[in-house]
Amino acid sequence: MKCFQHVADIGDLKAALDEALEVKKNRFAYQHLGKNKTLLMVFFNSSLRTRLSTQKAAMNLGMNVIVLDVNQGAWKLETERGVVMDGDKSEHLLEAIPVMGCYCDLIGVRSFARFNDKQEDYEERIFEQFKQYSGRPVFAMETATVHPLQAFADLITIEEHKTCPRPKVVMTWAPHCKPLPQAVPNSFSEWMCATGYDFVIACPEGMELDERFTHGATITHNQDEALQGADFVYAKNWSAYRDPNYGKIINRDMSWTVSAQKMALTRNAHFMHCLPVRRNLVVTDDVIESPRSLVIPEAANREISAEVVIKRMLESM
Amino acid sequence: MKCFQHVADIGDLKAALDEALEVKKNRFAYQHLGKNKTLLMVFFNSSLRTRLSTQKAAMNLGMNVIVLDVNQGAWKLETERGVVMDGDKSEHLLEAIPVMGCYCDLIGVRSFARFNDKQEDYEERIFEQFKQYSGRPVFAMETATVHPLQAFADLITIEEHKTCPRPKVVMTWAPHCKPLPQAVPNSFSEWMCATGYDFVIACPEGMELDERFTHGATITHNQDEALQGADFVYAKNWSAYRDPNYGKIINRDMSWTVSAQKMALTRNAHFMHCLPVRRNLVVTDDVIESPRSLVIPEAANREISAEVVIKRMLESM
Amino acid sequence: MKCFQHVADIGDLKAALDEALEVKKNRFAYQHLGKNKTLLMVFFNSSLRTRLSTQKAAMNLGMNVIVLDVNQGAWKLETERGVVMDGDKSEHLLEAIPVMGCYCDLIGVRSFARFNDKQEDYEERIFEQFKQYSGRPVFAMETATVHPLQAFADLITIEEHKTCPRPKVVMTWAPHCKPLPQAVPNSFSEWMCATGYDFVIACPEGMELDERFTHGATITHNQDEALQGADFVYAKNWSAYRDPNYGKIINRDMSWTVSAQKMALTRNAHFMHCLPVRRNLVVTDDVIESPRSLVIPEAANREISAEVVIKRMLESM
Repeated sequence: MKCFQHVADIGDLKAALDEALEVKKNRFAYQHLGKNKTLLMVFFNSSLRTRLSTQKAAMNLGMNVIVLDVNQGAWKLETERGVVMDGDKSEHLLEAIPVMGCYCDLIGVRSFARFNDKQEDYEERIFEQFKQYSGRPVFAMETATVHPLQAFADLITIEEHKTCPRPKVVMTWAPHCKPLPQAVPNSFSEWMCATGYDFVIACPEGMELDERFTHGATITHNQDEALQGADFVYAKNWSAYRDPNYGKIINRDMSWTVSAQKMALTRNAHFMHCLPVRRNLVVTDDVIESPRSLVIPEAANREISAEVVIKRMLESM
Repeated sequence: MKCFQHVADIGDLKAALDEALEVKKNRFAYQHLGKNKTLLMVFFNSSLRTRLSTQKAAMNLGMNVIVLDVNQGAWKLETERGVVMDGDKSEHLLEAIPVMGCYCDLIGVRSFARFNDKQEDYEERIFEQFKQYSGRPVFAMETATVHPLQAFADLITIEEHKTCPRPKVVMTWAPHCKPLPQAVPNSFSEWMCATGYDFVIACPEGMELDERFTHGATITHNQDEALQGADFVYAKNWSAYRDPNYGKIINRDMSWTVSAQKMALTRNAHFMHCLPVRRNLVVTDDVIESPRSLVIPEAANREISAEVVIKRMLESM
Repeated sequence: MKCFQHVADIGDLKAALDEALEVKKNRFAYQHLGKNKTLLMVFFNSSLRTRLSTQKAAMNLGMNVIVLDVNQGAWKLETERGVVMDGDKSEHLLEAIPVMGCYCDLIGVRSFARFNDKQEDYEERIFEQFKQYSGRPVFAMETATVHPLQAFADLITIEEHKTCPRPKVVMTWAPHCKPLPQAVPNSFSEWMCATGYDFVIACPEGMELDERFTHGATITHNQDEALQGADFVYAKNWSAYRDPNYGKIINRDMSWTVSAQKMALTRNAHFMHCLPVRRNLVVTDDVIESPRSLVIPEAANREISAEVVIKRMLESM
């Protein structure tokens, strides 16, 4: 595996899940793979779960880890050719990225959507440049449009908790006070559509995601209807994708908050969220604290999804 | 050992000191304990000595170490239930702390007194939440009210330098330009009271510490009298503990600065301070630079106290 | 080796280069040297290449690495004796540096020229204090006046690409929009003068470097003449060294930018630069992207120069 960005990159999902469960049982069994290998984690944005879980996964595999926090203000990269670089950008990406590749064997990149330019975000300009110029296998630690380590961890969690072969999984939009990227719902949808699950997305009108990620999902604007019979409820806020509202908050409807009343419509569903979550906006205290909440197991599985991805990259070197 | 916060947590002091001297002689002898174990160091406040010495101790024991700097501005944690989280706090501690526990085996926490609310500080709200919700053994890397790794290192240093079984140890308040927490003097007092030493605290009137930490100490407002016959002089500033002056500077008396003249009153005492120290405010240049100064050996013993604590936590897993 | 600062510290250059090529072929062969040894990297200034390459080199050698970022604003060190420390400086270097030495076996220091006081910069007050007070071997990761890890990497790169025993190497000043330190050109010149190469420095009048570093070089103000017959062109900006212009930009002449037209004057020379570089100011896009550009191999050799230096320090312990 040279790149981990989309669900297709992981290949057969059944094989990936089997490997995840094997890794989870014995997470220190593969240290020969990582000996004298170095992971470079590049963060253009801050991180708690991704930072800790990915570092842990790499150390489980016996790797050395270097973490590079790129302060967006302090280190701006020029991306165009022909520019006289007499402004605030002190280095060109055509030098910076190959240099980073010199000192490691594997690169993880976090670079969020900036919401300045939809095309720039959805073309994944930063991540693609790492793929093209670093000379190393590269994996997404949440990019402008995807967060596949989260989606893979969510899938592992559903497989561990499902009680029927083809559960009903509902991803529902929920209100939030800040404009959030679409990376998590894009990837969750992309991964769910690749399973055989009954997958439904509920969101207000105008809040539909990019169809490249939702192809195969049932999309509805009626949250209550969607929740009926659900086995898993995955709550998430995202800002608008559709023009002319890209990156904007166009809906603050608090009736979409996932509450006990809403959960009562389901088939005693598990509650899921990628975290961090704003309580009593996205979900009420009682739902997230209930025994059916999987938010901590999901987070714990981030170590496992990262370890499978890094293990595969090491194996294919 | 599941928690390291108070002197009682370390159990028998003689046994702990013997272990410390053993560890100091051969600090790399216990690496089987730390293999495939991860220490997470969480800093809500900045650090030099604690950061370096604790990391060194964990690496001596063969552990992996992850350092998490929590920028107070960037990541504010909600602590109450029922709040609609539409403000500046993007995560609730009820999620954040268990998640941190997922990715490690052991947690060290630094979280200073904020001086906003005495009860909040002295109830150790942050540290107690880590104990309660992380699911991991937790040790204090200086909390709102205690700094036991420092006190243990100071005790080791005194044991290495004492020339009689029951030395006279004087902790004296000294002036400072900023309001400092009581964590270091609280712990030093608590640990000294647990030894058989002749332990005296000298401070201006109104500057007395919480009696829970000073029970058993001789407390005086006469510094000169206290210093007579002292074998060890431990200088430290702290802000007022007593109401209504909690966290305030109520005394700037420069006659309390530890000078050569003051040291002349002692029995050729050793000078001690936890560092960092403001020279010519807390202590004069000549005293801290004299051959009787132990400030560097104290700092060096921070590696040893941390290693004993982490070793014991690893052993009890 | 107890200190790595000047070319003389590395001893015989032929032996050092042989060792570098040996290390490059088998960079993991010396891990017994670093076992249970800790490198402390202290950064008073930000870093990309030096941070990553030095950390990689130390891990290649089996060492533990601790990185300490000293935020200049947050942690100011008092350097004078006798001062009442009631201002913004909370610690004296006479404590801070020995304490850092307590927790490691080896120290790397980055501390740039501040351009406040030429004498302070050229006396290397920060770096010298680490040498004097840390009790550990110390190496420069770019100081106020030198950057020997870069110069050594550049020398390795030239040796790998030269086609005659005594190539013509031209270091040429180039324009820039910010006042840059002289550390890189000082060290490059010092190292080149220690080889048997034909070494020429081209710079505008008034931009001459400190003669302690350029003794033995041919110095000219005619760039075109210098470039004729060159095998290697090393472009670099620096601010004025000579009084009364120390640290100032006194020339912005864009005719000094290294362009294809300039390179055409050479003997099909390789282009070199230490990075980061401002394109179309120091060098044009086409020159830095041409097959004759060595900027990435130079950066990659930073890992090798650092590994040789750290290896020698470990061997002499």
